Amino acid sequence: MTVYKEEINLTSRGGTPTFFDITPEVKETIEKSKIKDGICVVISPHTTCSVFFEEFVHDYTEDGDEFLQVDLNDVLKKIIPDHISKEDYIYPGEEHYEAVEAWPNANVYLPNGDRTALFNGDAHLKSTLLGSSETFEVDNGKLGVGTTGYVYFVDFDRTRSRTRKCKIIIMGE
Amino acid sequence: MTVYKEEINLTSRGGTPTFFDITPEVKETIEKSKIKDGICVVISPHTTCSVFFEEFVHDYTEDGDEFLQVDLNDVLKKIIPDHISKEDYIYPGEEHYEAVEAWPNANVYLPNGDRTALFNGDAHLKSTLLGSSETFEVDNGKLGVGTTGYVYFVDFDRTRSRTRKCKIIIMGE
Amino acid sequence: MTVYKEEINLTSRGGTPTFFDITPEVKETIEKSKIKDGICVVISPHTTCSVFFEEFVHDYTEDGDEFLQVDLNDVLKKIIPDHISKEDYIYPGEEHYEAVEAWPNANVYLPNGDRTALFNGDAHLKSTLLGSSETFEVDNGKLGVGTTGYVYFVDFDRTRSRTRKCKIIIMGE
Repeated sequence: MTVYKEEINLTSRGGTPTFFDITPEVKETIEKSKIKDGICVVISPHTTCSVFFEEFVHDYTEDGDEFLQVDLNDVLKKIIPDHISKEDYIYPGEEHYEAVEAWPNANVYLPNGDRTALFNGDAHLKSTLLGSSETFEVDNGKLGVGTTGYVYFVDFDRTRSRTRKCKIIIMGE
Repeated sequence: MTVYKEEINLTSRGGTPTFFDITPEVKETIEKSKIKDGICVVISPHTTCSVFFEEFVHDYTEDGDEFLQVDLNDVLKKIIPDHISKEDYIYPGEEHYEAVEAWPNANVYLPNGDRTALFNGDAHLKSTLLGSSETFEVDNGKLGVGTTGYVYFVDFDRTRSRTRKCKIIIMGE
Repeated sequence: MTVYKEEINLTSRGGTPTFFDITPEVKETIEKSKIKDGICVVISPHTTCSVFFEEFVHDYTEDGDEFLQVDLNDVLKKIIPDHISKEDYIYPGEEHYEAVEAWPNANVYLPNGDRTALFNGDAHLKSTLLGSSETFEVDNGKLGVGTTGYVYFVDFDRTRSRTRKCKIIIMGE
Protein backbone atom coordinates (compact mmCIF):
# COMPACT_ATOMS: atom_id res chain seq x y z
CA MET A 1 0.00 0.00 0.00
CA THR A 2 1.37 3.41 -0.92
CA VAL A 3 0.43 7.09 -0.73
CA TYR A 4 0.87 9.42 -3.71
CA LYS A 5 0.14 13.13 -3.48
CA GLU A 6 -0.14 16.03 -5.88
CA GLU A 7 -0.90 19.71 -5.32
CA ILE A 8 -2.38 21.87 -8.05
CA ASN A 9 -2.84 25.63 -8.20
CA LEU A 10 -5.99 27.34 -9.46
CA THR A 11 -6.53 31.07 -9.92
CA SER A 12 -10.06 32.39 -9.42
CA ARG A 13 -11.34 35.44 -11.29
CA GLY A 14 -13.21 37.12 -8.40
CA GLY A 15 -16.59 38.83 -8.69
CA THR A 16 -18.51 35.55 -8.86
CA PRO A 17 -17.83 31.95 -7.77
CA THR A 18 -15.17 30.39 -10.02
CA PHE A 19 -15.52 26.74 -11.06
CA PHE A 20 -12.62 24.57 -12.24
CA ASP A 21 -12.91 21.25 -14.05
CA ILE A 22 -9.98 19.40 -12.48
CA THR A 23 -10.81 15.98 -13.95
CA PRO A 24 -7.70 15.92 -16.21
CA GLU A 25 -5.41 16.64 -13.24
CA VAL A 26 -7.13 14.01 -11.11
CA LYS A 27 -6.83 11.36 -13.84
CA GLU A 28 -3.20 12.25 -14.50
CA THR A 29 -2.36 11.99 -10.80
CA ILE A 30 -3.92 8.53 -10.62
CA GLU A 31 -1.85 7.43 -13.62
CA LYS A 32 1.37 8.81 -12.15
CA SER A 33 0.71 7.07 -8.84
CA LYS A 34 0.78 3.62 -10.50
CA ILE A 35 -1.81 2.61 -7.89
CA LYS A 36 -4.33 0.12 -9.30
CA ASP A 37 -6.96 -0.20 -6.57
CA GLY A 38 -7.84 2.15 -3.77
CA ILE A 39 -9.15 5.65 -3.22
CA CYS A 40 -8.54 9.13 -4.61
CA VAL A 41 -9.29 11.93 -2.15
CA VAL A 42 -9.62 15.46 -3.51
CA ILE A 43 -9.36 18.17 -0.86
CA SER A 44 -9.72 21.93 -0.57
CA PRO A 45 -7.54 23.31 2.24
CA HIS A 46 -9.38 26.65 1.97
CA THR A 47 -12.54 27.43 3.94
CA THR A 48 -14.31 29.20 1.07
CA CYS A 49 -13.73 26.47 -1.53
CA SER A 50 -15.29 23.06 -2.16
CA VAL A 51 -14.80 19.90 -4.19
CA PHE A 52 -17.74 18.18 -5.85
CA PHE A 53 -18.70 15.56 -8.43
CA GLU A 54 -20.97 16.59 -11.30
CA GLU A 55 -21.85 15.93 -14.91
CA PHE A 56 -19.85 17.79 -17.56
CA VAL A 57 -22.22 20.16 -19.39
CA HIS A 58 -21.56 21.34 -22.94
CA ASP A 59 -23.20 24.76 -22.59
CA TYR A 60 -21.33 27.73 -21.17
CA THR A 61 -22.19 31.29 -20.22
CA GLU A 62 -20.08 34.19 -21.51
CA ASP A 63 -18.10 33.91 -18.25
CA GLY A 64 -17.24 30.29 -18.98
CA ASP A 65 -19.60 28.80 -16.38
CA GLU A 66 -21.26 25.52 -17.31
CA PHE A 67 -25.06 25.64 -17.17
CA LEU A 68 -25.34 23.35 -14.10
CA GLN A 69 -22.94 25.68 -12.28
CA VAL A 70 -25.24 28.62 -12.99
CA ASP A 71 -28.17 26.57 -11.68
CA LEU A 72 -26.15 25.68 -8.58
CA ASN A 73 -25.38 29.35 -7.94
CA ASP A 74 -29.08 30.22 -8.31
CA VAL A 75 -30.17 27.47 -5.90
CA LEU A 76 -27.60 28.33 -3.22
CA LYS A 77 -28.44 32.06 -3.42
CA LYS A 78 -31.99 31.29 -2.31
CA ILE A 79 -30.75 30.62 1.22
CA ILE A 80 -27.25 32.16 1.07
CA PRO A 81 -27.50 35.54 -0.65
CA ASP A 82 -24.38 37.40 -1.73
CA HIS A 83 -22.62 39.08 1.18
CA ILE A 84 -22.84 42.69 0.01
CA SER A 85 -23.58 44.76 3.10
CA LYS A 86 -22.82 44.23 6.78
CA GLU A 87 -26.51 43.57 7.40
CA ASP A 88 -26.44 40.33 5.35
CA TYR A 89 -24.53 38.24 7.91
CA ILE A 90 -23.30 38.83 11.46
CA TYR A 91 -19.83 37.59 10.37
CA PRO A 92 -17.33 39.20 10.48
CA GLY A 93 -17.55 40.97 13.85
CA GLU A 94 -15.32 43.62 15.37
CA GLU A 95 -13.01 41.11 17.07
CA HIS A 96 -12.44 39.29 13.79
CA TYR A 97 -11.63 42.49 11.90
CA GLU A 98 -9.15 43.49 14.57
CA ALA A 99 -7.53 40.05 14.59
CA VAL A 100 -7.08 40.08 10.81
CA GLU A 101 -5.79 43.66 10.92
CA ALA A 102 -3.12 42.51 13.38
CA TRP A 103 -1.83 39.74 11.09
CA PRO A 104 1.61 40.41 9.55
CA ASN A 105 0.09 39.84 6.10
CA ALA A 106 -3.11 41.83 6.82
CA ASN A 107 -2.83 43.62 3.49
CA VAL A 108 -3.47 40.34 1.66
CA TYR A 109 -6.86 39.95 3.36
CA LEU A 110 -7.76 43.62 3.65
CA PRO A 111 -6.22 45.43 0.65
CA ASN A 112 -5.85 49.15 1.46
CA GLY A 113 -7.49 48.45 4.81
CA ASP A 114 -10.88 47.99 3.12
CA ARG A 115 -13.00 46.04 5.61
CA THR A 116 -15.55 45.06 2.98
CA ALA A 117 -12.86 42.70 1.61
CA LEU A 118 -13.99 40.29 4.34
CA PHE A 119 -17.59 40.25 3.09
CA ASN A 120 -17.29 36.59 2.13
CA GLY A 121 -19.65 35.01 4.65
CA ASP A 122 -21.66 33.63 1.73
CA ALA A 123 -18.61 31.74 0.46
CA HIS A 124 -17.88 30.25 3.89
CA LEU A 125 -21.43 28.96 4.28
CA LYS A 126 -21.66 27.52 0.76
CA SER A 127 -18.39 25.66 1.30
CA THR A 128 -19.66 24.22 4.57
CA LEU A 129 -22.77 22.90 2.81
CA LEU A 130 -20.91 21.33 -0.12
CA GLY A 131 -17.97 20.11 1.98
CA SER A 132 -14.23 20.42 1.59
CA SER A 133 -13.41 16.89 0.36
CA GLU A 134 -14.76 14.16 -1.87
CA THR A 135 -13.50 10.59 -2.18
CA PHE A 136 -13.49 8.62 -5.44
CA GLU A 137 -12.62 5.06 -6.40
CA VAL A 138 -9.38 4.10 -8.09
CA ASP A 139 -10.46 1.15 -10.20
CA ASN A 140 -7.87 -0.80 -12.19
CA GLY A 141 -5.63 2.26 -12.39
CA LYS A 142 -8.40 4.61 -13.51
CA LEU A 143 -10.79 7.10 -11.89
CA GLY A 144 -13.83 4.92 -11.11
CA VAL A 145 -16.63 7.06 -12.51
CA GLY A 146 -18.86 6.85 -15.58
CA THR A 147 -18.18 8.76 -18.81
CA THR A 148 -20.30 11.76 -17.78
CA GLY A 149 -18.81 12.19 -14.29
CA TYR A 150 -16.32 15.00 -13.67
CA VAL A 151 -14.51 16.42 -10.64
CA TYR A 152 -14.86 20.14 -9.91
CA PHE A 153 -13.16 22.57 -7.55
CA VAL A 154 -15.06 25.76 -6.78
CA ASP A 155 -13.86 28.96 -5.15
CA PHE A 156 -17.01 30.61 -3.80
CA ASP A 157 -15.10 33.70 -2.64
CA ARG A 158 -16.20 36.59 -4.84
CA THR A 159 -14.19 39.29 -3.08
CA ARG A 160 -11.13 39.12 -5.33
CA SER A 161 -8.99 36.96 -7.60
CA ARG A 162 -6.92 34.46 -5.62
CA THR A 163 -4.61 31.53 -6.30
CA ARG A 164 -5.83 28.42 -4.51
CA LYS A 165 -4.40 25.00 -3.80
CA CYS A 166 -6.15 21.70 -4.34
CA LYS A 167 -4.74 18.47 -2.88
CA ILE A 168 -5.10 15.12 -4.66
CA ILE A 169 -4.19 12.07 -2.58
CA ILE A 170 -4.12 8.54 -3.98
CA MET A 171 -3.95 5.62 -1.56
CA GLY A 172 -4.02 1.93 -2.41
CA GLU A 173 -2.00 -0.83 -3.97
CA MET B 1 -2.74 -2.81 5.02
CA THR B 2 -5.09 -4.10 2.33
CA VAL B 3 -7.84 -2.85 0.03
CA TYR B 4 -11.11 -4.76 -0.39
CA LYS B 5 -13.78 -3.64 -2.84
CA GLU B 6 -17.35 -4.56 -3.63
CA GLU B 7 -19.78 -3.24 -6.22
CA ILE B 8 -23.53 -3.51 -5.70
CA ASN B 9 -26.38 -2.84 -8.15
CA LEU B 10 -29.52 -0.94 -7.25
CA THR B 11 -32.57 -0.38 -9.47
CA SER B 12 -34.52 2.83 -8.98
CA ARG B 13 -38.25 3.04 -9.64
CA GLY B 14 -38.34 6.42 -11.42
CA GLY B 15 -40.99 9.11 -10.87
CA THR B 16 -39.59 10.17 -7.48
CA PRO B 17 -36.21 9.90 -5.74
CA THR B 18 -35.51 6.27 -4.77
CA PHE B 19 -33.81 5.53 -1.46
CA PHE B 20 -31.95 2.30 -0.68
CA ASP B 21 -30.93 1.08 2.76
CA ILE B 22 -27.56 -0.47 1.92
CA THR B 23 -26.46 -1.08 5.52
CA PRO B 24 -26.62 -4.90 5.18
CA GLU B 25 -24.38 -4.84 2.10
CA VAL B 26 -21.92 -2.46 3.78
CA LYS B 27 -21.70 -4.64 6.90
CA GLU B 28 -21.32 -7.81 4.83
CA THR B 29 -18.51 -6.23 2.80
CA ILE B 30 -16.65 -5.28 5.97
CA GLU B 31 -16.97 -8.84 7.24
CA LYS B 32 -15.75 -10.35 3.98
CA SER B 33 -12.75 -7.99 3.92
CA LYS B 34 -11.41 -9.44 7.22
CA ILE B 35 -10.11 -5.91 7.89
CA LYS B 36 -10.27 -5.05 11.60
CA ASP B 37 -9.39 -1.37 11.75
CA GLY B 38 -9.57 1.28 9.08
CA ILE B 39 -12.12 3.02 6.91
CA CYS B 40 -15.11 2.08 4.78
CA VAL B 41 -15.78 4.47 1.89
CA VAL B 42 -19.16 4.26 0.16
CA ILE B 43 -19.26 5.96 -3.24
CA SER B 44 -21.79 6.83 -5.94
CA PRO B 45 -20.12 6.97 -9.37
CA HIS B 46 -23.28 8.61 -10.77
CA THR B 47 -23.80 12.39 -10.79
CA THR B 48 -27.49 12.22 -9.80
CA CYS B 49 -27.01 9.88 -6.83
CA SER B 50 -25.69 10.36 -3.29
CA VAL B 51 -24.62 8.40 -0.23
CA PHE B 52 -25.61 9.52 3.26
CA PHE B 53 -25.81 8.44 6.88
CA GLU B 54 -29.16 8.59 8.65
CA GLU B 55 -31.31 7.01 11.32
CA PHE B 56 -33.44 4.03 10.33
CA VAL B 57 -37.10 5.04 10.65
CA HIS B 58 -39.85 2.47 11.24
CA ASP B 59 -42.61 4.34 9.36
CA TYR B 60 -43.02 4.07 5.61
CA THR B 61 -45.19 5.71 2.97
CA GLU B 62 -47.15 3.58 0.49
CA ASP B 63 -44.15 3.96 -1.86
CA GLY B 64 -41.82 2.46 0.73
CA ASP B 65 -40.10 5.73 1.63
CA GLU B 66 -39.10 6.12 5.27
CA PHE B 67 -40.57 9.22 6.94
CA LEU B 68 -37.21 11.05 7.23
CA GLN B 69 -36.73 10.51 3.48
CA VAL B 70 -40.07 12.21 2.82
CA ASP B 71 -38.99 15.09 5.05
CA LEU B 72 -35.67 15.29 3.20
CA ASN B 73 -37.47 15.47 -0.15
CA ASP B 74 -39.73 18.24 1.18
CA VAL B 75 -36.80 20.27 2.50
CA LEU B 76 -34.72 19.97 -0.68
CA LYS B 77 -37.68 20.91 -2.88
CA LYS B 78 -37.87 24.31 -1.17
CA ILE B 79 -34.73 25.40 -3.02
CA ILE B 80 -34.51 22.72 -5.74
CA PRO B 81 -37.98 22.24 -7.22
CA ASP B 82 -38.71 19.31 -9.53
CA HIS B 83 -37.35 19.88 -13.03
CA ILE B 84 -40.62 19.72 -14.95
CA SER B 85 -40.41 22.41 -17.63
CA LYS B 86 -37.47 24.00 -19.42
CA GLU B 87 -38.07 27.19 -17.47
CA ASP B 88 -37.09 25.54 -14.16
CA TYR B 89 -33.34 25.38 -14.84
CA ILE B 90 -31.07 26.63 -17.60
CA TYR B 91 -29.57 23.10 -17.83
CA PRO B 92 -29.61 21.37 -20.26
CA GLY B 93 -28.82 23.77 -23.09
CA GLU B 94 -28.80 23.23 -26.84
CA GLU B 95 -25.15 22.17 -26.97
CA HIS B 96 -25.72 19.53 -24.31
CA TYR B 97 -28.76 18.10 -26.08
CA GLU B 98 -26.82 17.88 -29.32
CA ALA B 99 -23.84 16.25 -27.60
CA VAL B 100 -26.03 13.60 -25.97
CA GLU B 101 -27.91 13.04 -29.23
CA ALA B 102 -24.56 12.31 -30.91
CA TRP B 103 -23.60 9.61 -28.39
CA PRO B 104 -23.68 6.02 -29.78
CA ASN B 105 -26.02 5.08 -26.92
CA ALA B 106 -28.17 8.23 -27.18
CA ASN B 107 -31.35 6.20 -26.95
CA VAL B 108 -30.52 5.24 -23.36
CA TYR B 109 -30.50 8.88 -22.29
CA LEU B 110 -33.17 10.19 -24.68
CA PRO B 111 -35.66 7.33 -25.25
CA ASN B 112 -37.56 7.94 -28.50
CA GLY B 113 -35.63 11.18 -28.87
CA ASP B 114 -37.67 12.77 -26.09
CA ARG B 115 -35.62 15.74 -24.87
CA THR B 116 -37.58 16.04 -21.62
CA ALA B 117 -35.79 12.84 -20.54
CA LEU B 118 -32.89 15.14 -19.60
CA PHE B 119 -35.03 17.21 -17.23
CA ASN B 120 -33.02 15.99 -14.24
CA GLY B 121 -31.29 19.22 -13.22
CA ASP B 122 -32.93 18.88 -9.80
CA ALA B 123 -31.25 15.49 -9.28
CA HIS B 124 -27.82 16.86 -10.26
CA LEU B 125 -28.08 19.75 -7.81
CA LYS B 126 -29.38 17.64 -4.92
CA SER B 127 -26.51 15.19 -5.39
CA THR B 128 -23.99 18.03 -5.36
CA LEU B 129 -25.39 19.27 -2.04
CA LEU B 130 -25.42 15.86 -0.35
CA GLY B 131 -22.17 14.67 -1.91
CA SER B 132 -21.15 11.52 -3.73
CA SER B 133 -19.20 9.75 -0.97
CA GLU B 134 -19.25 9.16 2.76
CA THR B 135 -16.52 7.61 4.90
CA PHE B 136 -17.20 5.41 7.93
CA GLU B 137 -15.04 3.77 10.58
CA VAL B 138 -14.18 0.09 10.55
CA ASP B 139 -13.91 -0.67 14.25
CA ASN B 140 -12.81 -4.12 15.40
CA GLY B 141 -14.14 -5.67 12.19
CA LYS B 142 -17.53 -3.92 12.39
CA LEU B 143 -19.13 -0.79 10.92
CA GLY B 144 -18.34 1.84 13.56
CA VAL B 145 -21.75 3.43 14.07
CA GLY B 146 -24.39 3.29 16.79
CA THR B 147 -27.41 0.99 16.68
CA THR B 148 -29.64 3.59 15.02
CA GLY B 149 -27.19 4.60 12.25
CA TYR B 150 -27.77 3.31 8.73
CA VAL B 151 -26.14 3.89 5.33
CA TYR B 152 -28.36 5.01 2.45
CA PHE B 153 -27.88 5.36 -1.30
CA VAL B 154 -30.31 7.68 -3.08
CA ASP B 155 -31.01 8.05 -6.79
CA PHE B 156 -32.51 11.54 -7.13
CA ASP B 157 -33.15 11.07 -10.86
CA ARG B 158 -36.92 10.91 -11.33
CA THR B 159 -36.88 10.69 -15.14
CA ARG B 160 -36.98 6.88 -15.37
CA SER B 161 -36.10 3.59 -13.70
CA ARG B 162 -32.36 2.90 -13.86
CA THR B 163 -29.90 0.35 -12.52
CA ARG B 164 -27.14 2.07 -10.57
CA LYS B 165 -23.81 1.01 -9.13
CA CYS B 166 -22.58 1.69 -5.62
CA LYS B 167 -18.94 1.14 -4.67
CA ILE B 168 -17.89 -0.02 -1.20
CA ILE B 169 -14.18 0.20 -0.44
CA ILE B 170 -12.62 -1.09 2.78
CA MET B 171 -9.05 -0.07 3.62
CA GLY B 172 -7.11 -0.93 6.74
CA GLU B 173 -5.40 -3.76 8.53
CA MET C 1 1.24 2.04 5.90
CA THR C 2 -0.45 2.16 9.29
CA VAL C 3 -3.80 3.07 10.84
CA TYR C 4 -4.05 5.18 13.99
CA LYS C 5 -7.35 5.91 15.69
CA GLU C 6 -8.61 8.15 18.45
CA GLU C 7 -12.06 8.64 19.93
CA ILE C 8 -13.02 11.88 21.66
CA ASN C 9 -16.09 12.70 23.76
CA LEU C 10 -18.04 15.93 23.45
CA THR C 11 -20.98 17.04 25.61
CA SER C 12 -23.62 19.22 23.97
CA ARG C 13 -25.64 21.78 25.93
CA GLY C 14 -29.07 21.12 24.40
CA GLY C 15 -31.58 23.83 23.45
CA THR C 16 -29.65 24.90 20.34
CA PRO C 17 -27.08 23.26 18.05
CA THR C 18 -23.74 22.92 19.87
CA PHE C 19 -20.51 23.51 17.95
CA PHE C 20 -17.11 22.16 19.03
CA ASP C 21 -13.73 23.33 17.71
CA ILE C 22 -11.89 19.99 17.64
CA THR C 23 -8.82 21.25 15.78
CA PRO C 24 -6.49 20.77 18.79
CA GLU C 25 -7.59 17.13 19.19
CA VAL C 26 -7.20 16.48 15.45
CA LYS C 27 -3.69 17.96 15.38
CA GLU C 28 -2.69 16.07 18.52
CA THR C 29 -3.93 12.78 17.04
CA ILE C 30 -1.88 13.35 13.89
CA GLU C 31 1.22 14.00 16.00
CA LYS C 32 0.68 10.89 18.12
CA SER C 33 0.20 8.76 15.00
CA LYS C 34 3.74 9.53 13.77
CA ILE C 35 2.27 9.31 10.26
CA LYS C 36 3.94 11.75 7.88
CA ASP C 37 1.87 11.55 4.71
CA GLY C 38 -1.67 10.35 4.20
CA ILE C 39 -5.19 11.24 5.24
CA CYS C 40 -7.03 12.20 8.41
CA VAL C 41 -10.70 11.24 8.43
CA VAL C 42 -12.96 12.82 11.05
CA ILE C 43 -16.27 11.01 11.54
CA SER C 44 -19.51 11.46 13.45
CA PRO C 45 -21.08 8.07 14.25
CA HIS C 46 -24.30 9.89 15.28
CA THR C 47 -27.10 10.69 12.80
CA THR C 48 -27.79 14.17 14.20
CA CYS C 49 -24.17 15.36 14.19
CA SER C 50 -21.78 16.53 11.46
CA VAL C 51 -18.13 17.32 10.86
CA PHE C 52 -17.12 20.33 8.78
CA PHE C 53 -14.19 22.58 7.89
CA GLU C 54 -14.51 26.31 8.51
CA GLU C 55 -12.59 29.46 9.36
CA PHE C 56 -12.01 30.21 13.04
CA VAL C 57 -13.92 33.40 13.91
CA HIS C 58 -12.88 35.65 16.79
CA ASP C 59 -16.39 36.89 17.68
CA TYR C 60 -18.69 34.89 19.95
CA THR C 61 -22.27 35.19 21.10
CA GLU C 62 -23.12 34.97 24.81
CA ASP C 63 -23.70 31.24 24.28
CA GLY C 64 -20.16 30.81 22.94
CA ASP C 65 -21.17 30.35 19.30
CA GLU C 66 -18.78 31.82 16.74
CA PHE C 67 -20.42 34.31 14.36
CA LEU C 68 -20.18 32.05 11.29
CA GLN C 69 -21.96 29.34 13.31
CA VAL C 70 -24.83 31.74 13.99
CA ASP C 71 -24.99 32.56 10.28
CA LEU C 72 -24.97 28.84 9.46
CA ASN C 73 -27.88 28.25 11.87
CA ASP C 74 -29.81 31.12 10.27
CA VAL C 75 -29.25 29.84 6.74
CA LEU C 76 -30.21 26.23 7.54
CA LYS C 77 -33.36 27.33 9.36
CA LYS C 78 -34.68 28.88 6.15
CA ILE C 79 -35.36 25.41 4.77
CA ILE C 80 -35.13 23.29 7.94
CA PRO C 81 -37.08 25.06 10.69
CA ASP C 82 -36.81 23.91 14.30
CA HIS C 83 -38.85 20.78 14.97
CA ILE C 84 -41.21 22.17 17.60
CA SER C 85 -44.60 20.65 16.88
CA LYS C 86 -45.67 17.41 15.20
CA GLU C 87 -46.87 19.40 12.20
CA ASP C 88 -43.31 20.49 11.30
CA TYR C 89 -42.15 17.11 9.96
CA ILE C 90 -43.84 13.77 9.33
CA TYR C 91 -41.00 12.08 11.27
CA PRO C 92 -41.34 10.45 13.73
CA GLY C 93 -44.43 8.35 13.02
CA GLU C 94 -46.39 6.01 15.27
CA GLU C 95 -44.32 2.94 14.35
CA HIS C 96 -41.09 4.72 15.21
CA TYR C 97 -42.40 5.88 18.58
CA GLU C 98 -43.51 2.36 19.42
CA ALA C 99 -40.17 0.88 18.31
CA VAL C 100 -38.21 3.30 20.48
CA GLU C 101 -40.58 2.74 23.41
CA ALA C 102 -39.82 -0.98 23.16
CA TRP C 103 -36.04 -0.51 23.41
CA PRO C 104 -34.50 -1.65 26.71
CA ASN C 105 -32.98 1.83 27.11
CA ALA C 106 -36.14 3.68 26.00
CA ASN C 107 -35.84 6.11 28.89
CA VAL C 108 -32.64 7.53 27.41
CA TYR C 109 -34.45 8.56 24.22
CA LEU C 110 -37.85 9.35 25.76
CA PRO C 111 -37.20 10.67 29.28
CA ASN C 112 -40.39 10.23 31.38
CA GLY C 113 -42.08 8.84 28.27
CA ASP C 114 -42.23 12.32 26.74
CA ARG C 115 -42.71 11.77 22.99
CA THR C 116 -41.66 15.32 22.11
CA ALA C 117 -38.11 14.22 23.04
CA LEU C 118 -37.96 12.75 19.51
CA PHE C 119 -38.72 16.11 17.87
CA ASN C 120 -35.26 16.23 16.31
CA GLY C 121 -36.15 15.82 12.64
CA ASP C 122 -34.45 19.16 11.99
CA ALA C 123 -31.16 17.80 13.37
CA HIS C 124 -31.36 14.65 11.22
CA LEU C 125 -31.91 16.66 8.04
CA LYS C 126 -29.18 19.22 8.76
CA SER C 127 -26.69 16.39 9.39
CA THR C 128 -27.63 14.74 6.13
CA LEU C 129 -26.96 17.98 4.25
CA LEU C 130 -23.59 18.68 5.89
CA GLY C 131 -22.48 15.04 5.94
CA SER C 132 -21.09 12.80 8.67
CA SER C 133 -17.42 12.75 7.63
CA GLU C 134 -14.71 14.99 6.24
CA THR C 135 -11.28 13.98 5.00
CA PHE C 136 -8.15 16.11 5.42
CA GLU C 137 -4.55 15.84 4.28
CA VAL C 138 -1.73 14.76 6.55
CA ASP C 139 1.19 16.71 5.15
CA ASN C 140 4.69 16.17 6.54
CA GLY C 141 3.24 15.12 9.90
CA LYS C 142 0.86 18.08 10.16
CA LEU C 143 -2.80 18.79 9.37
CA GLY C 144 -2.66 20.06 5.78
CA VAL C 145 -4.73 23.22 6.02
CA GLY C 146 -3.97 26.94 6.05
CA THR C 147 -3.65 29.00 9.22
CA THR C 148 -7.32 30.03 9.22
CA GLY C 149 -8.78 26.53 8.68
CA TYR C 150 -10.32 24.70 11.63
CA VAL C 151 -12.20 21.42 12.10
CA TYR C 152 -15.62 21.53 13.78
CA PHE C 153 -17.99 18.92 15.15
CA VAL C 154 -21.62 19.99 15.53
CA ASP C 155 -24.45 18.33 17.41
CA PHE C 156 -27.61 19.68 15.78
CA ASP C 157 -29.85 17.86 18.27
CA ARG C 158 -31.51 20.52 20.43
CA THR C 159 -33.71 18.16 22.45
CA ARG C 160 -31.32 17.70 25.38
CA SER C 161 -27.69 17.67 26.50
CA ARG C 162 -25.86 14.55 25.30
CA THR C 163 -22.34 13.16 25.30
CA ARG C 164 -21.23 12.35 21.76
CA LYS C 165 -18.33 10.50 20.22
CA CYS C 166 -16.13 11.73 17.39
CA LYS C 167 -13.75 9.39 15.59
CA ILE C 168 -10.39 10.54 14.21
CA ILE C 169 -8.64 8.09 11.90
CA ILE C 170 -5.15 8.68 10.49
CA MET C 171 -3.95 6.48 7.62
CA GLY C 172 -0.67 6.76 5.78
CA GLU C 173 3.04 6.22 6.12
